[in-house]
Amino acid sequence: MSAHFRKLALIGIGLIGSSIALAARRQGLADVISIATRRQETLDEARDLKLGDIYTLDAADAVRGADLVILCAPVGAYDALARAIGPALEPGAIVSDVGSVKEHVVKVVAPHLPAMVHFIPGHPIAGTEHSGPSAGFPELFAGRWCVLTPGPEVPADQTEKLAAFWRAMGSKVESMDAAHHDMVLAITSHIPHLVAYNIVGTVADLETATQSEVIKFSASGFRDFTRIAASDPVMWRDVFLTNRDAVLEMLGRFLEDLSVLQRAVRTGDGDALEAMFTRTRAIRRSIINAGQETAAPDFGRPHDTPPEPETKFVREHGGGDDA
Amino acid sequence: MSAHFRKLALIGIGLIGSSIALAARRQGLADVISIATRRQETLDEARDLKLGDIYTLDAADAVRGADLVILCAPVGAYDALARAIGPALEPGAIVSDVGSVKEHVVKVVAPHLPAMVHFIPGHPIAGTEHSGPSAGFPELFAGRWCVLTPGPEVPADQTEKLAAFWRAMGSKVESMDAAHHDMVLAITSHIPHLVAYNIVGTVADLETATQSEVIKFSASGFRDFTRIAASDPVMWRDVFLTNRDAVLEMLGRFLEDLSVLQRAVRTGDGDALEAMFTRTRAIRRSIINAGQETAAPDFGRPHDTPPEPETKFVREHGGGDDA
Repeated sequence: MSAHFRKLALIGIGLIGSSIALAARRQGLADVISIATRRQETLDEARDLKLGDIYTLDAADAVRGADLVILCAPVGAYDALARAIGPALEPGAIVSDVGSVKEHVVKVVAPHLPAMVHFIPGHPIAGTEHSGPSAGFPELFAGRWCVLTPGPEVPADQTEKLAAFWRAMGSKVESMDAAHHDMVLAITSHIPHLVAYNIVGTVADLETATQSEVIKFSASGFRDFTRIAASDPVMWRDVFLTNRDAVLEMLGRFLEDLSVLQRAVRTGDGDALEAMFTRTRAIRRSIINAGQETAAPDFGRPHDTPPEPETKFVREHGGGDDA
Repeated sequence: MSAHFRKLALIGIGLIGSSIALAARRQGLADVISIATRRQETLDEARDLKLGDIYTLDAADAVRGADLVILCAPVGAYDALARAIGPALEPGAIVSDVGSVKEHVVKVVAPHLPAMVHFIPGHPIAGTEHSGPSAGFPELFAGRWCVLTPGPEVPADQTEKLAAFWRAMGSKVESMDAAHHDMVLAITSHIPHLVAYNIVGTVADLETATQSEVIKFSASGFRDFTRIAASDPVMWRDVFLTNRDAVLEMLGRFLEDLSVLQRAVRTGDGDALEAMFTRTRAIRRSIINAGQETAAPDFGRPHDTPPEPETKFVREHGGGDDA
């Protein structure tokens, strides 16, 4: 299946959009890349970085004649963007996105698209703490998963064509139901972020003297939480507003389990604590066996040598903001 | 102040004990190092690794004539060890330890020590996922904090002598009240570990199909929690059994805050979510400014080059199990 498109339109050109532009260009996946963004300043930056061939503030203009359109803007802007581009879309075009939630995206985008385009929501599980057009690099997706959530009406060959595009950029691709995606991401990404934000917030409320010591001794575990909680507040606000049901379901399970642990601490039930702390090891082993991690200890320390953006294949890049 | 001791006795020779042995030897901090451990097999391993000069299964034997004794065994063994070594301690000796909790240590150890020794509990905030005598390396403490919690009866020059010993091994040293130590570590280390164990446990209860996808997509945040939750279950059981009050106090604050976030998610209060996610950034900045972390994104990825145990000064080593 060819991964090649005539015209790729990227609506939004932050970390993910600019990384797609660079990766698609390097791999020769599009003859023409058109870039639309809301702010002139961002558009100028994209042009200075030579990320595409066509630059416009008009999303409808960008998608004209495109056979692949990818929404790379914040999910909160999707509704308006879909209304804007709907009438300008080419029959047979594939329309996709990169948002962290998928059921909500289907709900706000699908009603505005003409019937003769193929809407295949997507979520590349990759990211860094940085944002903006200059943050992108072509290896961002290398070795990372990209989840596609096509509806039942999408022909299999169209999904396969989009999957080939992502694989050509280095991604591993998996298709699943949008609701299932949202539930899996709620527990792997959204709840960890919520908990990390929460524990850092608890520290923010401590008396000043204690807080300064918490900062001093942060290397003992807390530091890893502050890294997770350093992600973009607006993006995460939107995640929790748009994946509410899955997040509340998983948070409920998390809190039930925490009550059990809390009681074991209160009653001094050492056997229960040890059993709980032991069973979690199997999950860790599975992750290492799945190649998502090495067994080497790391504890979130900075790399001795920084990751080199120019190397061909950076397996472990990403996993942050946009996940 | 001289950091030198005639005879250093290490009771227990796991990751921390063996690292002290190697660092003290390298820096010439003791004429003689005696090592006691409970199991013959561990003792043989320590001897094969040439960690000390004297090897014995009898802790009392190890401390005879020692002017510095450091308990490096699990905290659960301290009571019995203190009873065993008490009568054999040299007048004027400094007795210390490396346990993660301090009030409990004072409670179980102090009653068994003769009046003419100086008991100065200690906690080097350093560690890795690995354990046992072969896991140690002399740079483990370099650039890491070591907290000392001497009681009011300890002469200042004795505390300063022990502090000089830790500084000579590369540590930064701070003294504080044992109860205050336990409260600070509850929020920087114990609650993060409890929460990490808990979320990994929640995943362990998911249906098998979902669980395999959680493992697949773990790079999106969850993976960092599994790393924290990979620590030694017995050590952590003892931490929660022995620092119960501080853990329950901080867990209570954490749960209060989480209820507020949960309600904001449920009611779709985007302003509250964004405000909460924004204020945590100040804490992150403080940690970076305090030199406990760099600003570079990392997301718990493995180092491109593994940490090199033979380099002289590894600033960011440690921060795991024994914290």
